[in-house]
Amino acid sequence: MDLINKVLERIKPSEEEHKRTIELAKNVIDELKSLLDDIDAEPMLVGSVAKGTNLKNADVDIFIRYSPKYDRSTIEKKTIELGKKILKNPLVNYAEHPYVRGKFEDVDFEIVPCYRVEESNRKITSVDRTPFHTEFILKNLREWQRDEVRLLKQFLKGIGIYGAEARVEGFSGYLTELLVIKFGTFMDVLKNAQRWKRKTHISLDNTKKDFESPLIFIDPVDPNRNVASAVSIDNYSLLIFSSREFLKNPNEKFFFPGQYKEFDLRKIDERGTKILHIWMKRPQVVDDILFPQIRKFARYLSENLMEFSITKIGYYVDNNVHLIIESYYHDLPPLMVHEGPPVWSKNSEDFIKKWKGRAFNGPYIMNGKFFADIERRNRKIEDAIMKLISSGSIGKDLDKLKETIVFSRDPSTIDLKELSRVLDYRFPWEL
Amino acid sequence: MDLINKVLERIKPSEEEHKRTIELAKNVIDELKSLLDDIDAEPMLVGSVAKGTNLKNADVDIFIRYSPKYDRSTIEKKTIELGKKILKNPLVNYAEHPYVRGKFEDVDFEIVPCYRVEESNRKITSVDRTPFHTEFILKNLREWQRDEVRLLKQFLKGIGIYGAEARVEGFSGYLTELLVIKFGTFMDVLKNAQRWKRKTHISLDNTKKDFESPLIFIDPVDPNRNVASAVSIDNYSLLIFSSREFLKNPNEKFFFPGQYKEFDLRKIDERGTKILHIWMKRPQVVDDILFPQIRKFARYLSENLMEFSITKIGYYVDNNVHLIIESYYHDLPPLMVHEGPPVWSKNSEDFIKKWKGRAFNGPYIMNGKFFADIERRNRKIEDAIMKLISSGSIGKDLDKLKETIVFSRDPSTIDLKELSRVLDYRFPWEL
Repeated sequence: MDLINKVLERIKPSEEEHKRTIELAKNVIDELKSLLDDIDAEPMLVGSVAKGTNLKNADVDIFIRYSPKYDRSTIEKKTIELGKKILKNPLVNYAEHPYVRGKFEDVDFEIVPCYRVEESNRKITSVDRTPFHTEFILKNLREWQRDEVRLLKQFLKGIGIYGAEARVEGFSGYLTELLVIKFGTFMDVLKNAQRWKRKTHISLDNTKKDFESPLIFIDPVDPNRNVASAVSIDNYSLLIFSSREFLKNPNEKFFFPGQYKEFDLRKIDERGTKILHIWMKRPQVVDDILFPQIRKFARYLSENLMEFSITKIGYYVDNNVHLIIESYYHDLPPLMVHEGPPVWSKNSEDFIKKWKGRAFNGPYIMNGKFFADIERRNRKIEDAIMKLISSGSIGKDLDKLKETIVFSRDPSTIDLKELSRVLDYRFPWEL
Repeated sequence: MDLINKVLERIKPSEEEHKRTIELAKNVIDELKSLLDDIDAEPMLVGSVAKGTNLKNADVDIFIRYSPKYDRSTIEKKTIELGKKILKNPLVNYAEHPYVRGKFEDVDFEIVPCYRVEESNRKITSVDRTPFHTEFILKNLREWQRDEVRLLKQFLKGIGIYGAEARVEGFSGYLTELLVIKFGTFMDVLKNAQRWKRKTHISLDNTKKDFESPLIFIDPVDPNRNVASAVSIDNYSLLIFSSREFLKNPNEKFFFPGQYKEFDLRKIDERGTKILHIWMKRPQVVDDILFPQIRKFARYLSENLMEFSITKIGYYVDNNVHLIIESYYHDLPPLMVHEGPPVWSKNSEDFIKKWKGRAFNGPYIMNGKFFADIERRNRKIEDAIMKLISSGSIGKDLDKLKETIVFSRDPSTIDLKELSRVLDYRFPWEL
């Protein structure tokens, strides 16, 4: 297909780029080897470059496999020391281990410590599995399928669901490769995905094990692991729908979507809803720690602000963490219906004593319970939110920055492209 | 107790009243007997007068027990004919059978047809059981307990839950008598009732059979029947609470409560809520048919107007049927969130086609389903209600009078005593 070739031309590293990347990787490995001479450890090229499934300008991943006789802090310190010595502009990032990102010549490298284990399921830390994945793909993915993987990766990138990190909750490179091994080609993966239902079980050898996730792909190097565990229900659903739409109308836009335009604020009057913008300082933690907390925060609010009739909660992150809340109301009436205990419960005496004479109305009985119509404490949505935040946790790191919270009922304080994404959503290929 | 004697004095028929009632009943029965001479049927005094548990000015119930060889229309016609002949100002009412109400001298009588059956559980119509009930009470209620029954009846009357008819959903006379037989005295019934929990099973012989109702009292003359089946959860709860309160602070007000005062309309501003008054012509059907329909109507509205944040629905009946609806809002914003099918369902194509380009926002995906933010059709509560009424049934007889529905957002069109009962509820002894 012409489209496929056009896409490949944009995403596949050229012969020269490829050769150069491999050469640079060898240089890094050689340098590491010489610096590791008194230590029981060996560097190893892993990841998409090793597997030949890399897109243009991909990071090169080098793992240093240490003997398990070393403790974690030793291998971490050593890796940081080596990474800083070899790479330019080195930056230490923190996942399960700290690792070093930086440039070697003009190419991005990551140098990551792990343990050398006999089998993947004997791993000490989760990255110990990575070398086994590399090995498995090298053995099982046909050479001609590498481009199929590249196409699938770019497709997933285009629709915004490539990457297993918490910010994305999508499809990892390894999962992409396994899907191609399973179904054959990029197009075959989509043809399958468009027919997925509520839950999908996949494995290469018919192992069947259940996990909580909507998509389950049993890891061929560790049958107790679901390679697709990061994939959220929304991203799973989006792949189903995108596959259907792409197969009906194949189009470069699925691989290379446009961007949101700024939201036209006059549209808010038409909707007749209220917008609340909340922001607070971004905690200095990695995305994998931050994003689950933001989602928890958003869920906590949407579950506890029912009375304001929340229609949508979105979020985005820059130097601050931002929430966008759309609701029918910003202010509630004074009266609220307060549910008390059943008439036959012991606490009902206290309820009566507490509200008799203080309530607008009641206590009265409804369906076997006492109720009273009482005066609401937090009539403004901001007050209701502050009450929720002070009485519950919004996540370990967000909690620490509670006092930096700012509210605005003026939607023009929001990044208007982000506001478009929340209030004027487009599927990526429609942008 | 002094209180008990004071109450009895007000509710118990005097010796003379009692004698006179019995004499009049005999006269009616004699007249009926002479008029029934060619028919296989006999008149019988039943009800509270027969059982000696009547309050002052009670109706006198005369049943005519016909041989089962007659068909229903024969016995009904005959009874109406006789009733009209004997009673002054006769009025034909319709329950399972039609029956005649009217005066004999200055006392209210009811003349009701039923079938003579061998055993209560062989009944043809539900009133065929009544003579067995009368017989059972005469045999099992001690003479000194008759006043205990009168006290309990008046207590139930006072708190508004005496009567098994649909308007009241409360305690029948027979149930009151059985409660006294079971527990001994008026005070013992209350001492027991105050400890009732979510569900109470009572029988005289430890029969245990389950029914849907919160209160179950197995009928000693028909173990397949729950004598308390009419008692609603709210009335059941009210008896529990009233018993507790009376035992803590015995007071004539429980037997003879005051009345609601007119609602002070300025209180609505304090509450900050909206009041809607709906009324329609009262259908010409008996209360036992009407009230279940009104309750169904009220429930239908409260379940389907969630978005207006209904806080209370009350009703009352005069020449019209009136609903009082209190809610946070009378008008909703243009936007509403419309839930569509799961992404993997076949209908999802249609949903997309329908809303693409027409919605304020979307279709978009949330938790595996498509949604769209669309324009609401019925933004005014009146329109939303008319929509509900035209698309669903509000009861056979109410349906026929749909076109007479009137709405008012002005609470001063409501009977202000009824409005007090709904918005400024008092327990009966507090009135």
